Amino acid sequence: MMKWPKHVTIKEVGPRDGLQNEAVTVATEDKIAWIQQLANTGLTYIEITSFVSPKWIPQLSDSYEVATNIERIEGVTYAALVPNQKGLEKALAANVDEVSVFMSASETHNRKNINKSIAETFPILADVVREAKAAQKTVRGYVSTVFGCPYEGMVSIEQVSDVAEKLLDMGIDELSLGDTIGVANPRQVEQVLTVLLKRFPKEKLAMHFHDTRGTALANVLMSLQMGITTFDSSLGGLGGCPYAPGASGNVATDDLLYMLHGMGISTGVDLDRLTEAALFIQEKIGRALNSHHLQTIASCRT
Amino acid sequence: MMKWPKHVTIKEVGPRDGLQNEAVTVATEDKIAWIQQLANTGLTYIEITSFVSPKWIPQLSDSYEVATNIERIEGVTYAALVPNQKGLEKALAANVDEVSVFMSASETHNRKNINKSIAETFPILADVVREAKAAQKTVRGYVSTVFGCPYEGMVSIEQVSDVAEKLLDMGIDELSLGDTIGVANPRQVEQVLTVLLKRFPKEKLAMHFHDTRGTALANVLMSLQMGITTFDSSLGGLGGCPYAPGASGNVATDDLLYMLHGMGISTGVDLDRLTEAALFIQEKIGRALNSHHLQTIASCRT
Repeated sequence: MMKWPKHVTIKEVGPRDGLQNEAVTVATEDKIAWIQQLANTGLTYIEITSFVSPKWIPQLSDSYEVATNIERIEGVTYAALVPNQKGLEKALAANVDEVSVFMSASETHNRKNINKSIAETFPILADVVREAKAAQKTVRGYVSTVFGCPYEGMVSIEQVSDVAEKLLDMGIDELSLGDTIGVANPRQVEQVLTVLLKRFPKEKLAMHFHDTRGTALANVLMSLQMGITTFDSSLGGLGGCPYAPGASGNVATDDLLYMLHGMGISTGVDLDRLTEAALFIQEKIGRALNSHHLQTIASCRT
Repeated sequence: MMKWPKHVTIKEVGPRDGLQNEAVTVATEDKIAWIQQLANTGLTYIEITSFVSPKWIPQLSDSYEVATNIERIEGVTYAALVPNQKGLEKALAANVDEVSVFMSASETHNRKNINKSIAETFPILADVVREAKAAQKTVRGYVSTVFGCPYEGMVSIEQVSDVAEKLLDMGIDELSLGDTIGVANPRQVEQVLTVLLKRFPKEKLAMHFHDTRGTALANVLMSLQMGITTFDSSLGGLGGCPYAPGASGNVATDDLLYMLHGMGISTGVDLDRLTEAALFIQEKIGRALNSHHLQTIASCRT
C-alpha cells in the first residue's frame, strides 16, 4: 500500500484568485463577511486580496478596506498578493500576515502579465522580498505557467527549476507552482516534481492547480505521492481562467476536501461550515458555482 | 519514476449508460449515426444499447433497431446490456458481439435495481452467461455499488470480492467494477484493488467511475498504478446519476483521453473525431454536456 500523508494544508485563494476572475464584483462588506466565514471553517491560510492596481483588477480595488476590516482569528494567516514595492507598501499598511509575489516560468506569459522580461522581474521581486522580510512578514512566491504557457506551449523543467531557485535564494518561504491554464497531467507533475525535489525541500513547495481539463484532483493525487502536502484551492471552484472564459478555475476547495477526507487525510477544515460559506458567496456571485460538491448538494436539495 | 502502462482500452458506454440517464430521448437514426461516428474514432468497444424492458428505460426502447441498423466496423466490439434471458434472446437476435450482465455488490441496491436478492440473482445471470457462451458471445459483468451504496453506505471489500468471484466462476470474461454513485476516492480504489488483484488477474478487471464528486480521473490514475488498463467512460460526460439529477455521470471519454494522451498512454482514439462526435450528440441532447474538454472547446469558440 502507498504511504499517504496524514495531514494536508489547504491554502484558500478564493477571495483573491477566485474573485479576480469573476465578472461580478462582490461588495466589500460581503467579501469581509465571507473571509470571516472562511476563517471559521478551520482553514489556516486565506489569501484575502491583491494589492495590484485597480486598473488591472477592478474586482479587488477595495483591498485595503477588506484587509483592515476583517476580524482576524488567531492561527489563521491572512495573505495578500503584491506585484511590486508600491503594492507591498499598501499591504504592509494594511498589516497582512504574509505577502505573495508572482512571476511566470515562461518568458512570453511573464511579459504579457507583468510587462517585463523574466530577468527584469527578479530584482523587483528581490526588493519586495527584502522589504517584506524587514517588516517581519513571510513571503510566498507564485510561479505561473509551470506546466504550460498559453503562448509558448511546453515550458522546460530546467526553466522552472531555475526560476524556483532564484526565488528561493531571495529568501521566499514557500513557492506555489501554478498550472495557470490547467493543462497539466499527473505524469508531468511526477516529472516536474522529480526534478524540483532533488533541488529543493518538499516543505518549500505548494501546488496550485486549475481544473480546466478536469485533471486537477489527479494532479493533486500525484503530488501527494511525491510528498507535497500544501495545496492552493478556491471554494466552489470560484473564478475562471482568463484565457478560457467559462472554463474551470482553481481546483475547488470543497472537492479537494472530499477527496482528502475520504482518503483519511486530515485538513482541519469543516466541510459543513465550508459548504455554508460556499452557498453564501455563490449567492453574491449570482451564478451556480461549478464544484462537484455544490452541484451534488444542489441536486440533493432539489 | 512510476511505471505507467503504454496502452489503455477505453470502453465507450455513452450510447447506453449515458443516454439512459438523459431526460431527452434521442431519435433512433441519430443514435445510429452517432454510434457510427464513435466507431470511426478508433474506439474498439462500444456499448450500444440495453435490452431491458422499455418500461424501465424508455430512452432505449429502440435497442433492436439500433443494434441491427448500424454498419459494423471490423475491430469494434458492439456490446449490449441484458438483464435476463428474455433480454439475451433479443440481443442474440440482434447479433451483438458481446452482452453485459449486471448486479450490485450491496443487497439493497440490488433489490431496488433488479427486484431480487443477490443470492437470487446469481442463477439468473448464470443462465444468461451459459446461453450467451453457447451462442459464441463474450460476456461482460457489471458490479454496481462497489465503492458505496446509496442505501447502505460503505460496501465491504469482502462482499465485492465474493460477488466478483461468483461472476468470474460463471465464465464471465471481464468484470467492470462500478462506482455507481461516484463516491470513491483513490485510497479506497487502492484498497479494493489490492484485495481483488490478489484473487483475480488484472486482465479480467475494468473500472467504471462516475464523476459525481470530481474524483473520477484521480481514481483512474490510482487504478492505472495498480495495473488496470481498461476503463469505461461516456463521451462528453453524457448521462447523470439517477440519485443526483444534475450531477455528473460517467467520467467523460474526452477528459479521460486528455489525461491519458498527455501522460503518453495511447488509446488508439482520435480526439478530433471524438470531439466532432461529442458536438453531434450534444446538439441532439439539446444541452451543453459537462466534460471539461467540451467546456474548454466552447470557451475557445466563443
